[in-house]
Amino acid sequence: MTTQQLFWFIPAASLTALLFAWYFFRNMMKESEGTATMKEIALHVRKGAMAYLKQQYKIVTIVFVALAAIFTVLAFLNIQNGWVPFAFLTGGFFSGLAGFIGMKTATYASARTANAAQRSLDSGLRVAFRSGAVMGLTVVGLGLLDISIWYLVLNHFVEGATASQKMMIITTTMLTFGMGASTQALFARVGGGIYTKAADVGADLVGKVEAGIPEDDPRNPATIADNVGDNVGDVAGMGADLYESYCGSILATAALGATAFAWNDTLQLKAVFAPMLIAAIGIVLSIIGIFLVRTKEGANMKQLLGALGKGVNVSSLLIALATFGILYVLKLENWLGLSFSVISGLVAGIIIGQATEYYTSHTYKPTQRIAQSSETGPATVIISGIGTGLISTAIPVITIGAAIIMAYLCATGFDVKNMLSAENLSLGLYGIGIAAVGMLSTLGITLATDAYGPIADNAGGNAEMSKLPPEVRKRTDALDALGNTTAATGKGFAIGSAALTALALLASYIEEIKIGMERLGQHVLQFANGREVDVAKATIPDFMDYFQITLMNPKVLVGMFIGAMMAFLFCGLTMNAVGRAAQSMVEEVRRQFREIKGILTGDATPDYARCVEISTKGAQREMLFPSILAIVIPIVTGLVFGVSGVMGLLVGGLSSGFILAVFMANAGGAWDNAKKYVEEGNFGGKGSANHKATVVGDTVGDPFKDTSGPSLNILIKLMSMVSIVMAGLTVAYHLL
Amino acid sequence: MTTQQLFWFIPAASLTALLFAWYFFRNMMKESEGTATMKEIALHVRKGAMAYLKQQYKIVTIVFVALAAIFTVLAFLNIQNGWVPFAFLTGGFFSGLAGFIGMKTATYASARTANAAQRSLDSGLRVAFRSGAVMGLTVVGLGLLDISIWYLVLNHFVEGATASQKMMIITTTMLTFGMGASTQALFARVGGGIYTKAADVGADLVGKVEAGIPEDDPRNPATIADNVGDNVGDVAGMGADLYESYCGSILATAALGATAFAWNDTLQLKAVFAPMLIAAIGIVLSIIGIFLVRTKEGANMKQLLGALGKGVNVSSLLIALATFGILYVLKLENWLGLSFSVISGLVAGIIIGQATEYYTSHTYKPTQRIAQSSETGPATVIISGIGTGLISTAIPVITIGAAIIMAYLCATGFDVKNMLSAENLSLGLYGIGIAAVGMLSTLGITLATDAYGPIADNAGGNAEMSKLPPEVRKRTDALDALGNTTAATGKGFAIGSAALTALALLASYIEEIKIGMERLGQHVLQFANGREVDVAKATIPDFMDYFQITLMNPKVLVGMFIGAMMAFLFCGLTMNAVGRAAQSMVEEVRRQFREIKGILTGDATPDYARCVEISTKGAQREMLFPSILAIVIPIVTGLVFGVSGVMGLLVGGLSSGFILAVFMANAGGAWDNAKKYVEEGNFGGKGSANHKATVVGDTVGDPFKDTSGPSLNILIKLMSMVSIVMAGLTVAYHLL
Repeated sequence: MTTQQLFWFIPAASLTALLFAWYFFRNMMKESEGTATMKEIALHVRKGAMAYLKQQYKIVTIVFVALAAIFTVLAFLNIQNGWVPFAFLTGGFFSGLAGFIGMKTATYASARTANAAQRSLDSGLRVAFRSGAVMGLTVVGLGLLDISIWYLVLNHFVEGATASQKMMIITTTMLTFGMGASTQALFARVGGGIYTKAADVGADLVGKVEAGIPEDDPRNPATIADNVGDNVGDVAGMGADLYESYCGSILATAALGATAFAWNDTLQLKAVFAPMLIAAIGIVLSIIGIFLVRTKEGANMKQLLGALGKGVNVSSLLIALATFGILYVLKLENWLGLSFSVISGLVAGIIIGQATEYYTSHTYKPTQRIAQSSETGPATVIISGIGTGLISTAIPVITIGAAIIMAYLCATGFDVKNMLSAENLSLGLYGIGIAAVGMLSTLGITLATDAYGPIADNAGGNAEMSKLPPEVRKRTDALDALGNTTAATGKGFAIGSAALTALALLASYIEEIKIGMERLGQHVLQFANGREVDVAKATIPDFMDYFQITLMNPKVLVGMFIGAMMAFLFCGLTMNAVGRAAQSMVEEVRRQFREIKGILTGDATPDYARCVEISTKGAQREMLFPSILAIVIPIVTGLVFGVSGVMGLLVGGLSSGFILAVFMANAGGAWDNAKKYVEEGNFGGKGSANHKATVVGDTVGDPFKDTSGPSLNILIKLMSMVSIVMAGLTVAYHLL
Repeated sequence: MTTQQLFWFIPAASLTALLFAWYFFRNMMKESEGTATMKEIALHVRKGAMAYLKQQYKIVTIVFVALAAIFTVLAFLNIQNGWVPFAFLTGGFFSGLAGFIGMKTATYASARTANAAQRSLDSGLRVAFRSGAVMGLTVVGLGLLDISIWYLVLNHFVEGATASQKMMIITTTMLTFGMGASTQALFARVGGGIYTKAADVGADLVGKVEAGIPEDDPRNPATIADNVGDNVGDVAGMGADLYESYCGSILATAALGATAFAWNDTLQLKAVFAPMLIAAIGIVLSIIGIFLVRTKEGANMKQLLGALGKGVNVSSLLIALATFGILYVLKLENWLGLSFSVISGLVAGIIIGQATEYYTSHTYKPTQRIAQSSETGPATVIISGIGTGLISTAIPVITIGAAIIMAYLCATGFDVKNMLSAENLSLGLYGIGIAAVGMLSTLGITLATDAYGPIADNAGGNAEMSKLPPEVRKRTDALDALGNTTAATGKGFAIGSAALTALALLASYIEEIKIGMERLGQHVLQFANGREVDVAKATIPDFMDYFQITLMNPKVLVGMFIGAMMAFLFCGLTMNAVGRAAQSMVEEVRRQFREIKGILTGDATPDYARCVEISTKGAQREMLFPSILAIVIPIVTGLVFGVSGVMGLLVGGLSSGFILAVFMANAGGAWDNAKKYVEEGNFGGKGSANHKATVVGDTVGDPFKDTSGPSLNILIKLMSMVSIVMAGLTVAYHLL
């Protein structure tokens, strides 16, 4: 079989994923939605979610049209490739579609999960989990589909001086569709994140704290908005986010492969296909893993975690083995080393997941200590939560650091003496990219465990509002608690993969600069000492040297300061956005309690739609500024400080953003579970002063873990993508 | 007058500073300490503070002896300069001495300030402010004294192949005494910070919240510990911190000057003396400013701020003018440009101070909005405080970024085209260093405004406990409120100067590597492409190239991740340390209320000493691990990743640490003042639910602004200093 023929495995795997997604969706739709009340509640949530997405897509469309117009102008000025506007639009379209399908499925699945839970715990788990798998498989399926189509299109139309150069143009062009995906993802994450937490915080503050009614109580006007939020934030946002990481890591690695093996057409093609083939085999093995997830009645938390873990672990193990096979068949130089690079990524993902569980699950000391600090009130709960969150960054950072070094060294055959030679640098960066692909190869199933969470959460809400019998509530509660843990580990995974992907994108940025220079007719790098190097043949060290992308270049340093600051500023803006939007929600709920008589006695129905509308408007209003900032700052930095400033910006944003994201996700998760720990009867239990103190922690943690933290993943990647797409502009115009 | 003769201005200015410090101290001691109760309370605080320092110095001495022993061994192995152990010890000694004198003065001054406030507001302000000036002048005086002595000693003993080389050895050797100062400062800041906040949080949680007694009430067993804490944390810690920044910036700039002007002995000497002379003139002009600070009876906050501002602004203006004079007289190449570099630093310091005031003073919107968010409880107070703190990082980061670029461009005559040539790089980095010196040249007076805060705070405590008449309390309250604002701006200033100093140290690190290589007999840089460069003649770009300190070197990137993580981890450890120490304090206070009958009715005296002891032990136990980590991590990073990894570590630590420190200081300051805003009668006023919500914010903010945030300044500098001192070891041994 020729290498070109191997390509067809990629669209085949993509279609397989979509086929199984459709199969799981159909099966889920065959389940009954339960009683009339259950149907009605589900309908409310579905309508609210769709109304939100409609509104969201309207605004995003405007942004996309504006950006595509700018790209078209740049293409006409010959600053940019003419394919960019189209690639940008399809990236955005597919990313949005993945989120849309995932969310649609989730809103159909929640009542059905609640209803299935009436039969047995296993039935509930299966409906919820396989509905989650719809999104997992849709994301990977659409991702590889988009990649396959673009490869075929560009391979047909693009022309290059040599086969090797053609491939470099193809891969760097494909990379730009990542910007569409990131832009879509950022709006989805930020808008959805603000929506869900404004509703959640608002519902809790007035409902739980002021009116003293339980969570998901139908008397709370914000309860539907809260359930809608789980879908638009945690499902649609997460889907768009990971779609972007998935495609970004594959495409960046392909671009790095095209450079690293530019000296041999056949090897180059193999290096470009390798990440795609690993992703393709990952899809098939994820599907096998999905079928392995089942449980028995009365399973406890540990057994439920084990049920999901079995699926993920079997998939991971099989992918590890298959990687050796694929790379052996491809006969890539140093296939064994590269296989171990893939394994570094896989293992790093697992370690980060474990560390996240340790710091956020209340079966371990750190979260228990936060719960214990409630003995001295809310202030100490906040202090110890922030302290624990900050400390929890150490293991993920060291793990990613170790994975980077291992992936690099494995790919370069542990050639420590010449570790940084031009050849080893290309190969090593390819190794880092392929480690990111390794980490994300299990996405079909890991994303399923993630999307499962909000479905189970909504199922619990539906059961509560429909007043299903206690044993059913107990089952949905068990499923929901499981979802909290998978959500936390899923976030660790999303952040870790974003860090590796961003690093691969950083290396690809250099490639884009190269293409941009050639497009502008700058074919020679003229060094101060008289040395001249052809741009086409210039190595990464040549570019580092030419642009002086060193730590003593003040432009690099100032860029890094700005990049690091962006992460903090972005978090601050989204935190305050949630605060403001929640405030409007609180006022609306208070108004309804005051003006609509009989809500609290259950004699009148609250105006759910009004709360949904407030969250929608709040999210739309608040998401624009931080999102546009994320697009504008890299462009401005490029125009002022040039290439070296942009590289500084990206590295500064990556290091601070990655760590800040881990901190926020873990602190938020730990507070959530510290509250649950108290609710289970420790330190005074439900209703005690200690419980109230932990509720404060949980409320603070909400925007930490579901708005600001996860948005940082995309901020990091989007800033890289904007820089990549604007590389030509930076080359053409810069002040310093 | 020859340049060598100009040197004598430096020790002369140093002695002038110490003379005026002694004069202010004597004048303060002539004031009466007031009634017997006032004396007794002051004695309690003084004894507690001294007991703490004694304990602290015991532990620090052990650490110093151990480190000095290691340095001696390294010197015997010829990995290090034989002067290092001695320089290290004197740096530590003087830094500790500056803190000690400042604290001793503060503990004598508080009762005297309260007593003087019985006469008039102006008398109170003068006693407190001039006592603060004792520390300000002691820090700058001892700093320049240590520098002068070492210069004379080394100039006498050191031998070099040429005059220029001798000077480079002198300046890089002197730099290492900074490590002693940083180590001392870190222990002082971390230990003192944990002490003060454990006592403060503990006293507030049980006293204010549980027992409902006011702040500084003598019935609270932790109240003396709280007052002791202000002295050991905010005075001794701050003094040691800024001593280190002050000397660090001067010495780093001297070292950069020795390199930048190595081609001409006379210019070189001038470039080495320039930062010292600017500092010297800064001392004289600071003293003039100190005499300008006075106020009239019944002055409001704005007028009081104006009184201090007048002193600082006049000093700044005069220093700006004098800088042009000094550099003109020195006839340094491009003296005009370098003068503007100094001005960039001065102006940046002022802008950061203003921005800090905007974000933390309740006369502005951000803090008022935090107060407003108390309408929906403590959770939203925390959310909006964190949001505001994160957003507040933008202006200081952009300001420092602009100052870096301006200082660089001014120093290099706006030679944008050759901005990064080897010559311009040397000159530009010298410009950045001298900007740091410019920012710190006003330290004599700015530190006085800073040290004034805890003195006024303690005076208020003393007045409360001694039951002085209400009009006196009103005066001490006004002085205390002023202190809160100066403390916030002082922190902004400390962080900003730490960032610039760390940047200058980064450049000096390269010089130390050069010296280290020569010591180890590595006289030639052998490049992969065959090029050879003499180490002695190698430029900064040569070193960047040789060690590949670029953003695509995975060792640099992993180093950066670790550095950025260190800032987060360090914050987390210190936050949790405060949490734990406060918990012990809470338990002790509860025990005393329970077991010693009659405390709350005022019939029995609480056991103050026991609380002081608990805070002391808690602080000592908790400070060791994070402090040792800060010393060990740079060494380990060097041993594993070599020079490029260390550079990454320092830059990563600098960018994240700087921004995290600004965030923590501003969020903490804003929470404090949001509480004060409510206490002034807004949003329900004292005792309302809103007030309780803002008290939670204030309590969380305590370790933010007084423990973790300020410790980060020193973490950044200490990691640089450790790397500088261990440069030889890194050159000799490294894994990758």
